[in-house]
Amino acid sequence: MNLTVTAARELAHASLMQLGYSDAETWIIVAHLMDCELRGLGFSGLARILSIAERLADTPRSTHPIAVVKESAVSARLDGGDQLGYLVAERATRLAIDKASSAGIAIVGASNTWYTGMLSYYAEMAVAQDLIVMLASNASPWVAPHGGTEGRFGTNPICFGFPSNRQPVIWDIGTSSIIHAQVKLAQRIGEALPAGVAFDAAGRETRDPTAALGGALAPWGGHKGSGLAIVVHLLGMLAGSPIMPGELRDFGFLAIAVRPDLLTSLDDYKAAVDGYANAIHSTRPVENGAPVRMPFERSMAERAARVETDRLEIPDEVVQALRAMCGQ
Amino acid sequence: MNLTVTAARELAHASLMQLGYSDAETWIIVAHLMDCELRGLGFSGLARILSIAERLADTPRSTHPIAVVKESAVSARLDGGDQLGYLVAERATRLAIDKASSAGIAIVGASNTWYTGMLSYYAEMAVAQDLIVMLASNASPWVAPHGGTEGRFGTNPICFGFPSNRQPVIWDIGTSSIIHAQVKLAQRIGEALPAGVAFDAAGRETRDPTAALGGALAPWGGHKGSGLAIVVHLLGMLAGSPIMPGELRDFGFLAIAVRPDLLTSLDDYKAAVDGYANAIHSTRPVENGAPVRMPFERSMAERAARVETDRLEIPDEVVQALRAMCGQ
Repeated sequence: MNLTVTAARELAHASLMQLGYSDAETWIIVAHLMDCELRGLGFSGLARILSIAERLADTPRSTHPIAVVKESAVSARLDGGDQLGYLVAERATRLAIDKASSAGIAIVGASNTWYTGMLSYYAEMAVAQDLIVMLASNASPWVAPHGGTEGRFGTNPICFGFPSNRQPVIWDIGTSSIIHAQVKLAQRIGEALPAGVAFDAAGRETRDPTAALGGALAPWGGHKGSGLAIVVHLLGMLAGSPIMPGELRDFGFLAIAVRPDLLTSLDDYKAAVDGYANAIHSTRPVENGAPVRMPFERSMAERAARVETDRLEIPDEVVQALRAMCGQ
Repeated sequence: MNLTVTAARELAHASLMQLGYSDAETWIIVAHLMDCELRGLGFSGLARILSIAERLADTPRSTHPIAVVKESAVSARLDGGDQLGYLVAERATRLAIDKASSAGIAIVGASNTWYTGMLSYYAEMAVAQDLIVMLASNASPWVAPHGGTEGRFGTNPICFGFPSNRQPVIWDIGTSSIIHAQVKLAQRIGEALPAGVAFDAAGRETRDPTAALGGALAPWGGHKGSGLAIVVHLLGMLAGSPIMPGELRDFGFLAIAVRPDLLTSLDDYKAAVDGYANAIHSTRPVENGAPVRMPFERSMAERAARVETDRLEIPDEVVQALRAMCGQ
């Protein structure tokens, strides 16, 4: 059904308050989920609140706070205390921004967390402070390596962000052929998966989301993409994630942020990023093709359009379930 | 034809000396090219000496030395002086290793260079010093972005390396659907390219290597892979490469190295990398599939096998041309 931006935000806020998050925590989570809705990534938007509620029904909310357990001028490691990833990764990103702004480069890892959301959200925070950033996040072993049919890594997103004078360049991909939140949403609303993206528990290809969640998703990009997922897993292990995380726990989040003026001038660099975007836009398209875009341009355009029309389309099942949570 | 390892190494050394490189420089280049041959990547091996000779015939060797032009405890930028990339990237990697070993993390960029070779070669240098490393290298605009038919970035490899107790994990991929050295070798030995990997100058698909070199190669991995190539280009620009490098000049090379003990203990991390390799190996393969491997395992096995048999297969055209260069 269609909701205004304000109505969606208020529904998200009310639902998360019901789950016991503080007002300050709730606004951090809502900002992230609403950004997903505005960018057209609804499977990572309000629907995610239902997945959070299920996790908390299964494992009640931890009372451990997020804590810095190791630190230097160029690094920090956080123990997420089994808190929600939206909160842990936001804190880790702020720390990476602070340290890189002072020291020029910094690495921050966080572990013992779950559901970190879209890495591009954190990348936007860093590029807004004129930093180049690399982010990676590992998760439960829902995805099989290339040539295999059993899960050995998560949907393992990796993301790079670059500041510019016009719009930032943010490349953010999942390394699975379908993302976990899409499979959860397909299960929730009773849709089949596309062909070729999942195996059941016996290693046979399946289009049933429930069978896929009990089996494994396929990796993206053949052996190259599967190798990148392994890279993300090993970066998550550097952040403190174990060799094989349990179900919806023990995710790792890693951020490396760099001040461009370590190697060049910030102004020159930002101007060059804009210049390169111009060069990409000027590329002759394939026959009958659309103009060639830079990473993140589509997301920014989608977000601007939804803000303009003030209209979000959210599955009925999701809105009804959230309203029920709030006693509406 | 088949050459022993020693015969191939001596032929490479003699050929490079003919091009005016010093004995010390020659050994740095030969070690890299021989590693390509041993790992079965012949297109980046001895054949590359012919491409170097062509570049030097076109643009005589620069008299500018490689120089550090900007430096801090955690960073350095090198001007490659238009020297060969094998020399520039080796120097940049050594500097990144030294700085990261002291400061915990370091970023080093080098520009004004050409032909940097396999990034995994430099990654092996860093992991041997117990560092985690990320490497990226941009090049002349031989490759079209997804949805376009004109070159806007190079074959733009990216690489991550992780130390372990058994064998290191090194993931090193090119972001084009075919690598430049493969196209050059196909042209040299008169072979057609596979279908779907290149456009001619008019934007039509082609299998002719000469037409492809005058047009553009296709990117790997659709919009995700094309976005990664753009990331590598922007990292190369951070290293000092211009918005649009000329033909075989102005490449950029970027290295970020990290000491694992910034976030965890080195011993624990290396043991965990081995443990994760075990988990990957234990994955049930697809029906009738081979055992699942970790990145770099195949390369290490190929290298060990060729050292054992002492036999390299190098195209006749390449051996004859190198022998002619040496007056043999």
